[in-house]
Amino acid sequence: MALRPLGIGDVRIGGFWADRQRANASAIPLGRQRLEEAGNLQNLRIAAGQADGEAIGPVFADSDVYKWLEAVAWEYAREPSDALLEMQREVTALVAAAQSDDGYLNSVVQVRHRDQRYTDLPWSHEHYCAGHLVQAAVAQVRCTGDTALLDVAVKLADHLADTFGEDRRHDVDGHPVIEMALVELYRVTGDPRHLELARYFTEARGHGLMAGYGQEPTYFSDRVPVREATTVEGHAVRAVYLAAGAADLAAELGDDGLLDALRTQFDHMTATKMYVTGGLGSRWDREAFGDPYELPTDRAYAETCAAIGGVQWAWRMLLATGDARYADAIERMLFNGFLSGVSLAGTEYFYVNPLQHRSDAHADGNRSPAHGRRGWFDCACCPPNVMRTLAGLEGYIASRDDSGLQLHQYAPGTVTAGDTALTVETGYPWDGLVRVRVDAAPGPVTLSLRVPAWAEGATVGGAPAGPGYVRVQAAAGDVVELRLPMEVRTTTAHPRVDAVRGCVAVERGPLVYAAEQADHDTPVDDLRIDLGAPRVSEHRPDLLGGVTVVTAGELTLVPYYAWANRGPAPMRVWIPTT
Amino acid sequence: MALRPLGIGDVRIGGFWADRQRANASAIPLGRQRLEEAGNLQNLRIAAGQADGEAIGPVFADSDVYKWLEAVAWEYAREPSDALLEMQREVTALVAAAQSDDGYLNSVVQVRHRDQRYTDLPWSHEHYCAGHLVQAAVAQVRCTGDTALLDVAVKLADHLADTFGEDRRHDVDGHPVIEMALVELYRVTGDPRHLELARYFTEARGHGLMAGYGQEPTYFSDRVPVREATTVEGHAVRAVYLAAGAADLAAELGDDGLLDALRTQFDHMTATKMYVTGGLGSRWDREAFGDPYELPTDRAYAETCAAIGGVQWAWRMLLATGDARYADAIERMLFNGFLSGVSLAGTEYFYVNPLQHRSDAHADGNRSPAHGRRGWFDCACCPPNVMRTLAGLEGYIASRDDSGLQLHQYAPGTVTAGDTALTVETGYPWDGLVRVRVDAAPGPVTLSLRVPAWAEGATVGGAPAGPGYVRVQAAAGDVVELRLPMEVRTTTAHPRVDAVRGCVAVERGPLVYAAEQADHDTPVDDLRIDLGAPRVSEHRPDLLGGVTVVTAGELTLVPYYAWANRGPAPMRVWIPTT
Repeated sequence: MALRPLGIGDVRIGGFWADRQRANASAIPLGRQRLEEAGNLQNLRIAAGQADGEAIGPVFADSDVYKWLEAVAWEYAREPSDALLEMQREVTALVAAAQSDDGYLNSVVQVRHRDQRYTDLPWSHEHYCAGHLVQAAVAQVRCTGDTALLDVAVKLADHLADTFGEDRRHDVDGHPVIEMALVELYRVTGDPRHLELARYFTEARGHGLMAGYGQEPTYFSDRVPVREATTVEGHAVRAVYLAAGAADLAAELGDDGLLDALRTQFDHMTATKMYVTGGLGSRWDREAFGDPYELPTDRAYAETCAAIGGVQWAWRMLLATGDARYADAIERMLFNGFLSGVSLAGTEYFYVNPLQHRSDAHADGNRSPAHGRRGWFDCACCPPNVMRTLAGLEGYIASRDDSGLQLHQYAPGTVTAGDTALTVETGYPWDGLVRVRVDAAPGPVTLSLRVPAWAEGATVGGAPAGPGYVRVQAAAGDVVELRLPMEVRTTTAHPRVDAVRGCVAVERGPLVYAAEQADHDTPVDDLRIDLGAPRVSEHRPDLLGGVTVVTAGELTLVPYYAWANRGPAPMRVWIPTT
Repeated sequence: MALRPLGIGDVRIGGFWADRQRANASAIPLGRQRLEEAGNLQNLRIAAGQADGEAIGPVFADSDVYKWLEAVAWEYAREPSDALLEMQREVTALVAAAQSDDGYLNSVVQVRHRDQRYTDLPWSHEHYCAGHLVQAAVAQVRCTGDTALLDVAVKLADHLADTFGEDRRHDVDGHPVIEMALVELYRVTGDPRHLELARYFTEARGHGLMAGYGQEPTYFSDRVPVREATTVEGHAVRAVYLAAGAADLAAELGDDGLLDALRTQFDHMTATKMYVTGGLGSRWDREAFGDPYELPTDRAYAETCAAIGGVQWAWRMLLATGDARYADAIERMLFNGFLSGVSLAGTEYFYVNPLQHRSDAHADGNRSPAHGRRGWFDCACCPPNVMRTLAGLEGYIASRDDSGLQLHQYAPGTVTAGDTALTVETGYPWDGLVRVRVDAAPGPVTLSLRVPAWAEGATVGGAPAGPGYVRVQAAAGDVVELRLPMEVRTTTAHPRVDAVRGCVAVERGPLVYAAEQADHDTPVDDLRIDLGAPRVSEHRPDLLGGVTVVTAGELTLVPYYAWANRGPAPMRVWIPTT
């Protein structure tokens, strides 16, 4: 790997993201309650023999519990509390009790399907649930030192390794995530069987296994082997989870061929299949990536989970390559397509994240933005996924290599790595000045500061700095100033993006802006932007939790992530020009 | 009713549509074969006790048989043959043999569900299949005089009337069509129970019956009563079939309130939810109407069956009101969004009819245009629906009232009604001259000739004629000349149709044009239209079965209906301007 992640507690952040994390912290106990109400915990009790009854909810119900447990672990690392530990111990004990003696664990299969295992792998999500369990276990042991869930995860992983493989049952789950989970587990256990199983599950895809079940393979990321794919396709969350696992594997095995293939896929995705918000997956139909340049704004699906998976993939590519473009993509996804998925209060969620919501839009099932954000869903993948991502956000801020430290995302706070300690002062994303002070260092240290591709005219220490990482030598006591220009920008799309022809998106810093009905008398559907009008930025601490508002002529724009916090009113990101 | 339909055999057509009808005639025996291969006929044999086995295919499998039988009847009226009668007798006998003694008939329920009737009405399509049976029976008795299928239909309708109603089982099927079928049956039988049951099924919708099954009601046209609805919504085919039935009912009962509501709905549909091709239903997701102005070109679903249902609804509105706008809509649907659904050979079909197909479009299930048209589908509603519509197309050409005859659609041929006989000479849709000769008339007769709304500058008998019906008094021997200007037009969309901002559609006469890759070196994705370039029309008898090609600068455009007859290549209707 080009770069190495920092350890738990090495990064502490305040400011913008800390506000979101505090809101998220208030959602975590609510999540426990939702899992109770929706039956997820009861399913585990029934599987454990602690209760009677039938399993309820989708086949992947357990995964919501595991994502929530992972959120608890990250949140504990951020802000320890007995209440978190108490919840963690209780639910972990329940998960452990539900596990079969041979390591198998999936409460819905155990209860509803009378323990008939692996009979419908395209849809049963058995490995998918296992993957989320493993991820939660790795987070738990790293954040709290508690090995209770890790014991369950290792037992389950060993069961999977005994059961699946080239010379055992040759099959894969319809929904990836187990791949990256097993690499993460390997990094904790050092057991080569865990890495090998990750390799097997990754490489076994794309050879027709789903077709053997009578399924069209594209949806399941099973049309071509991941190392032969040149783009992302099919179900967006499945596709990016698989790619993230493959990136882990490529890094761990030094598999440059696989890494090159993933680079090509990521490039093609960002060039042709990613919204300006970083949203991924344009189709409601089968929650899929569309064709290249098929990026409708109104029916953008852009599932919150897909943005999360996109961040996970990009982070692994960044570590593997050190290429700033991946950090740029993470910034775009986090501040826009991911963050729109949760309310400012932190307790309500969007499943889909469109870039336009019309005046006459009607509700379309409980995932529709016409309802506004919701506290939970029948298919509740997104809420606990948001929880774990926000709680563990420190992990994406910085990294290290032999020469020093890299700052990928900007937030006020502290970064420590061994003997080196930095303090970052910034009002980012509202203000473009980032001051990095070296509080301690064993000697000269190389700081790599990311200049985002959007930041034309940036300076580091007063000198012009182009996009990518600017490397600065610094010693204890030094202060490095990065200035990112915060002029309002208008962005036009590739001419093949038919959906937004004749429109611009307004951006400022890392934020994509949107016009919301609350700020306009004219229906948002009919707004136009005068490109010649002066653009004014004003910070409004009173508005939407504190945002910088952009005005241009009659238009008033607020950050996209903050939309629908004043009711699910009409909104648009791409605005036709006059 | 303002207008009355003519009788079977009263209209004979040649020219453009007769070419399509001849191709369609060749598809009908193939359809018999497909129904055999797909198991639809075998299901009926099993239900009849003539074979053993399990039912295969979707729950609405019988309806494909009935639509095909209806096509056979219409085709017999157009071009009688023993072969058609033989097929009709054989399949009708099979249908009759499958019917239960008490009149119930649905082979899949009888076989797969062991005759457990009406347990899942939102999805079981039991009334839907009955509706198609009734429509086929009405066509059969009218076209061939054979009452065999009518006997089955009456027995089934009587069973339904015994079973369902306000004071019986209060329930409706998830998929309308039974409503218009029962009104049609009433017109044959005169039995008020058949009309009353149509009224009941129509009025019972929109009061929460689907919610009682745990279903979201919009998809099933069950959110609001049809007489309170102000737009079309939910599953497009369901919505327009219900509206067509309601229009029949309004006409039959003289229910002006219901007719007014349908007028409002139709107007809102054409103003905000209809493609320039007449295509209906923009969403792949649940095959639904989108929000107003949500009309993507690439992912237009625009199911072939929805265009057919749109024609059926518009025809009933036309008869009820005499308003030319409905005939305009029929013309737009038939020549474009409907006709694109079938290949020039008449034997392959599109399920969905997008207005754009990109270079890199990938296949998306067997309904995807990336495959090109197909001979049949797993869900085979469209092919036999095309067959019956093309075979019975004469029905939409003309009508009568007390004063005379109305010509709604132009095709060369003859129209007779009582003592009045006309000959129409025209090269429509390629040429705009329509000569109507009165061959016989008992005295002065009023001819109403439709001037389409697109035909600015039209003349009748040399005098300027605005859109709508131009009424001309004529007697035997008179010739009336209608001239419709065939200049190439460019059309822009309502500014709220975000999907085609900055684009125009090219139209000539009733035809919408498209750019296809076969005629261009530049990728179709990148084509632009220079609005200042001279537009040239040239008839090319050698191309695509004979079409008038439009060129404008570097652009070459062919009629939209003819696309994908040279392979499923890139195509676009809406073209960005330079």
